[in-house]
Amino acid sequence: MPDAFTADDYAHRMQLAATVAADAGFAGLVITPGPDLVHLCGYAPPAVTERLTALVLAPGRQPTLVVPRLEQPDAAKATGAPALAMVEWLDGSDPYASTASLLDGHGRYAIADSAWALHLLGLQRALPGTTYVSLSDGLPMLRAVKDERELARLAAAGAGADASFVDILATRFAGRTEEEVADELAALLRRHGHSQVDFTIVASGPNGANPHHQAGSRTIQPGDPVVLDFGGLRDGYGSDTTRTVSVGEPADEVRTVYEIVRRAQQAAFEAVRPGVPCQEIDRVARRDIVEAGYGEYFIHRVGHGIGLTTHEPPYLVEGEEQPLLPGMCFSIEPGIYLPGRFGVRIEDIVTVTEDGGRRLNNTTREMQTVA
Amino acid sequence: MPDAFTADDYAHRMQLAATVAADAGFAGLVITPGPDLVHLCGYAPPAVTERLTALVLAPGRQPTLVVPRLEQPDAAKATGAPALAMVEWLDGSDPYASTASLLDGHGRYAIADSAWALHLLGLQRALPGTTYVSLSDGLPMLRAVKDERELARLAAAGAGADASFVDILATRFAGRTEEEVADELAALLRRHGHSQVDFTIVASGPNGANPHHQAGSRTIQPGDPVVLDFGGLRDGYGSDTTRTVSVGEPADEVRTVYEIVRRAQQAAFEAVRPGVPCQEIDRVARRDIVEAGYGEYFIHRVGHGIGLTTHEPPYLVEGEEQPLLPGMCFSIEPGIYLPGRFGVRIEDIVTVTEDGGRRLNNTTREMQTVA
Repeated sequence: MPDAFTADDYAHRMQLAATVAADAGFAGLVITPGPDLVHLCGYAPPAVTERLTALVLAPGRQPTLVVPRLEQPDAAKATGAPALAMVEWLDGSDPYASTASLLDGHGRYAIADSAWALHLLGLQRALPGTTYVSLSDGLPMLRAVKDERELARLAAAGAGADASFVDILATRFAGRTEEEVADELAALLRRHGHSQVDFTIVASGPNGANPHHQAGSRTIQPGDPVVLDFGGLRDGYGSDTTRTVSVGEPADEVRTVYEIVRRAQQAAFEAVRPGVPCQEIDRVARRDIVEAGYGEYFIHRVGHGIGLTTHEPPYLVEGEEQPLLPGMCFSIEPGIYLPGRFGVRIEDIVTVTEDGGRRLNNTTREMQTVA
Repeated sequence: MPDAFTADDYAHRMQLAATVAADAGFAGLVITPGPDLVHLCGYAPPAVTERLTALVLAPGRQPTLVVPRLEQPDAAKATGAPALAMVEWLDGSDPYASTASLLDGHGRYAIADSAWALHLLGLQRALPGTTYVSLSDGLPMLRAVKDERELARLAAAGAGADASFVDILATRFAGRTEEEVADELAALLRRHGHSQVDFTIVASGPNGANPHHQAGSRTIQPGDPVVLDFGGLRDGYGSDTTRTVSVGEPADEVRTVYEIVRRAQQAAFEAVRPGVPCQEIDRVARRDIVEAGYGEYFIHRVGHGIGLTTHEPPYLVEGEEQPLLPGMCFSIEPGIYLPGRFGVRIEDIVTVTEDGGRRLNNTTREMQTVA
């Protein structure tokens, strides 16, 4: 396992975030529980609830955590806690007033994407002169560039997912339900180092045409293409990979569609290098699929960032002009979905290097047949 | 199992919500994924992400679900879907513009508590003339009064939690770690009908003084008081109960503190009847504890509502003047927490009847000793 993040690491991250925010014209940041809080101070409360927990960062001021009194002992144990001042609030008191005293009444703040509306409205009410911008709009790249230790964790998560795919290939598909295969995939992810399984999509035959089909009671049939899309967390960082397999020999059109997706995914991967706008990766993959006549069946963006969460900036989507930077990590996952018939998707996590891209998933992208 | 909720039930709930909102001066409701969406239309997307899903309700208009194109097939399968119009949006398009077209540009809307700031800010930007109030501030009682079928589910969840407590009493505590007992509690909850386990607090000795201590590597010792607070979902509705047990004979002060908490919990329960303000239940429990000299160690409200989630209105807290209504369900859970020493908490879920209260947890509240 890579070295653990230390109190100094978190102190540095918090200081850097406040500086980056100031450079972008913000008075500071308001961070509620979720991946940004974990990134900045290593704290995840026992549950995300209606009780406000909020980290307030501003340049030149000590980072301060507003925390419910009864959760303060948990917060004090966070690795980043030594750098934090804590403001406790008791049930029945007004946590927004406590937070407001830490904010500039006319400031513009970046706020965590997943902060509850309950809390944002509470702050807007307590300080009507403040304005807020979501982190993914205001400071989208705050966590997007991963350092070496983060990359090591993402690579380990990818390797665990790859090993799970290799193992599942050796099992029988025909005659089992999607749910049975999904349960086995989940067990394999855990066996291969994952502490948490977030999704195990097993979408067979016509179910593959729904990109977010989970896994159901359908019994897998000989001849089915089966989309396997699975991932979770290993040492805090995410995995997310998709392979489409065939139960026995695939039909001609399945083979044709598969090759179109495979080539689109390869072309998109080869387009990765520093300075290329995010949307260009989407365009490259889409161009191939459109030219092959399947454009209307590729119904989602080509990829999303990954790190402490499975979906985070950068998003590889039309309209996103952010240039790729070394250390960014994201999925490349073109797909073709033919309603009522079948679907094909191929997905790898890719990181940007100094002169190109490096895949963190490395199982074969040639179509595999299973029993 | 009680009868399933039908498409008609959801259509009725949505119509009722729009009417109640109009009566409270709202132009309508904006409901993102979470318990309110489940309550109103039976839909829970595969994951809650940065992609906007929002149900818009307004009096006299068809309920409309704004949904990402790739999740539309999931939404269409929701039990409440027949009553819904759907507005799909594609990656790269602006979901807030799609939602804005369904809203009155100068309307005041109630929005789900846990709606992401990302989404609320998107709506505020798309329609600067709209204003928003969180559901728990604007329409806190929308889900607070449970009907017979909901009560049946909550009672079943409570019975499953009770059976789990009875089973765990028969096991050995001394010499096992908190985590081992917590794992067994989780397995028991599943055996007793729970589909999801949300928390299994096992807080032994000094760890009991942290109300939200989860379960750690501490080995439980003879003489320890142990706080057991556990719950999850059964058939979609929550359980949440706490008992404090003693490993062998308790010390005198543990016994004394236990009796204070037990009497406070009993007094609070006996105060439950329609028309009593929520805060009065908190006051009754607190009065006993303050009079016994432990007021400063009761560091949280006495209770919270429960239903599709473990924490929801009504909150039994100082300042909450909402009168109790028949069908409301909530916890009554006073506690005393002595830092560095031990803690005691006793918690039952209680529902308001026509003339008093009825407990949905019915294991003994006399202190139990375990091996």
